[in-house]
Amino acid sequence: MINIALLGHGVVGSGTAAVLNEKASQLKRVTGQDVALKYVLVRHDYDVDYKEKFVYDFSVIENDEDVRIVVEAMGGINPALDYVTRALNKGKSVVTSNKELVAQHGRRLMELAKEKGVNFMFEAAVGGAVPVIHAVRNCLKANSVYAVAGILNGTTNYILTKMIDEGMSFDRALKQAQELGYAEADPSADVDGIDTCRKICILSDIIFKNHVYPEDVAVEGIRSVHIEDVNILKKHGGCVKLLGVARKAGEKLMVTVAPFAVLDKGVIGATDDVFNSVQVETDNAGTMAFYGRGAGSLPTASAVVNDICECVTAGGPAYEGWNGPKEGFLADVRQVPMRYYLRVEADADKLRADFEGAQVLHSGSETAMITADICGRELEEKLSGYSVKAVLKVF
Amino acid sequence: MINIALLGHGVVGSGTAAVLNEKASQLKRVTGQDVALKYVLVRHDYDVDYKEKFVYDFSVIENDEDVRIVVEAMGGINPALDYVTRALNKGKSVVTSNKELVAQHGRRLMELAKEKGVNFMFEAAVGGAVPVIHAVRNCLKANSVYAVAGILNGTTNYILTKMIDEGMSFDRALKQAQELGYAEADPSADVDGIDTCRKICILSDIIFKNHVYPEDVAVEGIRSVHIEDVNILKKHGGCVKLLGVARKAGEKLMVTVAPFAVLDKGVIGATDDVFNSVQVETDNAGTMAFYGRGAGSLPTASAVVNDICECVTAGGPAYEGWNGPKEGFLADVRQVPMRYYLRVEADADKLRADFEGAQVLHSGSETAMITADICGRELEEKLSGYSVKAVLKVF
Repeated sequence: MINIALLGHGVVGSGTAAVLNEKASQLKRVTGQDVALKYVLVRHDYDVDYKEKFVYDFSVIENDEDVRIVVEAMGGINPALDYVTRALNKGKSVVTSNKELVAQHGRRLMELAKEKGVNFMFEAAVGGAVPVIHAVRNCLKANSVYAVAGILNGTTNYILTKMIDEGMSFDRALKQAQELGYAEADPSADVDGIDTCRKICILSDIIFKNHVYPEDVAVEGIRSVHIEDVNILKKHGGCVKLLGVARKAGEKLMVTVAPFAVLDKGVIGATDDVFNSVQVETDNAGTMAFYGRGAGSLPTASAVVNDICECVTAGGPAYEGWNGPKEGFLADVRQVPMRYYLRVEADADKLRADFEGAQVLHSGSETAMITADICGRELEEKLSGYSVKAVLKVF
Repeated sequence: MINIALLGHGVVGSGTAAVLNEKASQLKRVTGQDVALKYVLVRHDYDVDYKEKFVYDFSVIENDEDVRIVVEAMGGINPALDYVTRALNKGKSVVTSNKELVAQHGRRLMELAKEKGVNFMFEAAVGGAVPVIHAVRNCLKANSVYAVAGILNGTTNYILTKMIDEGMSFDRALKQAQELGYAEADPSADVDGIDTCRKICILSDIIFKNHVYPEDVAVEGIRSVHIEDVNILKKHGGCVKLLGVARKAGEKLMVTVAPFAVLDKGVIGATDDVFNSVQVETDNAGTMAFYGRGAGSLPTASAVVNDICECVTAGGPAYEGWNGPKEGFLADVRQVPMRYYLRVEADADKLRADFEGAQVLHSGSETAMITADICGRELEEKLSGYSVKAVLKVF
């Protein structure tokens, strides 16, 4: 019998309880063990049919040697970090869906788990149901990855999809997302890119073996995405997506979160509404991508329960070696050459002369175009005399 | 030291040798063992820098107890089946990229491997570099799957992409694919859907725990796809894709290979050129999809080498339980209700009267429309008085 303790009973926690119950016989078949919920840590009492499992004090879970796996579904750093640390110290494996916790403290918790010979798993913290952590850990053993890019936040992707498909303004699309419960009353963590940033930091650690902290990443949200640019790109078969991107730049790693002009066909451009996707660029396998529901109670819970199964069947800790803390391994995004989408109040011919190799998408009183590869710093200099309406990185 | 024997030295075999060599230190790091090529079974001698590993008689490999993993990259049933069976009987794990072998004999070989306590792995046989076998085995433990659909053949997808993007006829696109080496001189296995059929049979076994034999599947290729229908669908944001589909239909399983009208946004419609993708429909996680290069030397070899790593690190055989042989578990495709795309030489109003709830895409001397859900048998009856130009299943 594998006893599970669940910390938190919100969207993810209650979904996890439901999936554990609904799939009990399937879990027994695939793991060879009975997997059962023993405790649910809650703050106050209310009515569910497994109310007898409610506890209000974490030390009950911490001190019960029969609890083998702790699922942290509370979110936030406090008290999650304290509880997770204590659970690992007691030799319990931990599964979490908490991206903030993993982005800030994941590497330290992985090290602690390894030291204790248990697992610290967090598939649900990145991309919801999309098994991207599992895939990059287990399916790329014959590859080196040089870039990863993802649509990692369903709320912003829903807003952008509304802008692209229905011509809505950002403000109206945000309001609709709030009415549907996709966006919170304070939408900052989503629309300002903070949530996406946490997730690309986690992916960067697992893929590139260097932990990237959110505060070190240049993050731009989608508040300044104009419907004009969405429409111009749409006419050319493109769109705008909020991406988290990590890419090798020589010996360094470039990590950024920003709204990108997506021109490419492929999975990223086809990921609409609340779906998430992650594209990985490798040397041998080429481009690979993983797609699925980025949020929601049951999709996220299904990733949590899959991690629980891995904890049960794993021989030892799923541990990533890493390169250790490294000063200065992050590249300055503005020093890495890439293409940019520009909309500028200027004549196309004048701009063409200043930006050799640019592709003009729209001309009139304003000109929209895609530049050739250029560094952000150089771009700024070249644009200094112009009235610039929009600048987007190009995917 | 883990000694590998490679059977065959064509596109996949030579790629596997290259990846094993190139990634030797990475493989040692991820598996904890030296993984090295000991033998390459070839038919005749030629010049490569590891020529000393060439052998011409399988029994050398069979009888060498130091060979722990045999990679079968010969293709076809004979002598692959004989060699794979003998390798498993000697307690060696087998990794293969041979879809024909796995589609026809995979279940029997999985049973034999289990009996011998070794692995029989075949990621590269379905979707090339796309880790779909791994994902459905390892990432869906908290889900039940009710449908799987895939673009599983790069050659036909390349041809269809040319038809969609450039308005080429089937014949011209096929010729171009042949000139580029994507299609063989005899393209039947690809364009008639045989290759896709083998792959959907393999996926059906792993996902639905019942082995489906290619000869029991209704298969339609892409020779009869008209550019007119491609263009009509394109105008409505859709396209035509050759799909292998397996879907639960009550207690039965519907398996089919056919060109589908794809209306949905999402990964399947965004999979172009020689890329493959597989979409899985689940109860808890909802829709998931996996995308990548479906063929090519290094992408396929990277899947083979990843399987090799799994053989090295696996505690025991990766074995799927199954439901055993079951008479009559396959549904008749023509008795399962689904939407159809029709192009008929008839007036739209007359057709609308006969097909309630249909959506007209094009009207003129011919009418193109999408029906509501209807069984194929009933559709045939309703169409019996009409001059029918095209019928496609709708995805």
